Amino acid sequence: MIELKERHCRPCKEGEKPLNSDQAAELKSLLLTPWHIKEHEMLTKEFVFENFKRAMAFVQEIGLIAEQENHHPAICIHYTRVEITLSTHDVGGLSENDFIVAAKIEDL
Amino acid sequence: MIELKERHCRPCKEGEKPLNSDQAAELKSLLLTPWHIKEHEMLTKEFVFENFKRAMAFVQEIGLIAEQENHHPAICIHYTRVEITLSTHDVGGLSENDFIVAAKIEDL
Repeated sequence: MIELKERHCRPCKEGEKPLNSDQAAELKSLLLTPWHIKEHEMLTKEFVFENFKRAMAFVQEIGLIAEQENHHPAICIHYTRVEITLSTHDVGGLSENDFIVAAKIEDL
Repeated sequence: MIELKERHCRPCKEGEKPLNSDQAAELKSLLLTPWHIKEHEMLTKEFVFENFKRAMAFVQEIGLIAEQENHHPAICIHYTRVEITLSTHDVGGLSENDFIVAAKIEDL
């Protein structure tokens, strides 16, 4: 099986359904650090840095991943805390793409 | 009077109070574009860009201002939308610093 962080996001198919709880839990178990699933449709994690500069550098790297994968997490920066929220608008919930980007982010 | 965007943030004094509504409204009137005051203690604005790359470039520039002024807005990036929230933790509400950083951001 290809590791999550080595996979690439793919465009959603017409009418594709979001992952169900079991599918989401299974993919979540492949992540190496704790992430949270909120309201069955968002994958979130907060990262804390020693200063704002490092937080901003991290955000820039996430930006590169987001562009490479054409899958863009919501990113909130509160001084040294960076909150990431992944969700797949096209399916109205979670897709494998969210977990792939999460794996690449935690690998930074 | 020195234009807001030319001023610099200063450390808050011990026991400094937040701006009252009139003081905040007066400083808000010096900003060149619409900003919103939320719950008397946050100054916010949403900026929309043509793509994610431009949104991220804007965020980086805000980061530089924040570091120069040692006053850090909360920044939320939702694809092409960037939401800025300014507030001064040390006074528990708004201070002139929030308006100075807002003026520098809208000047970008």
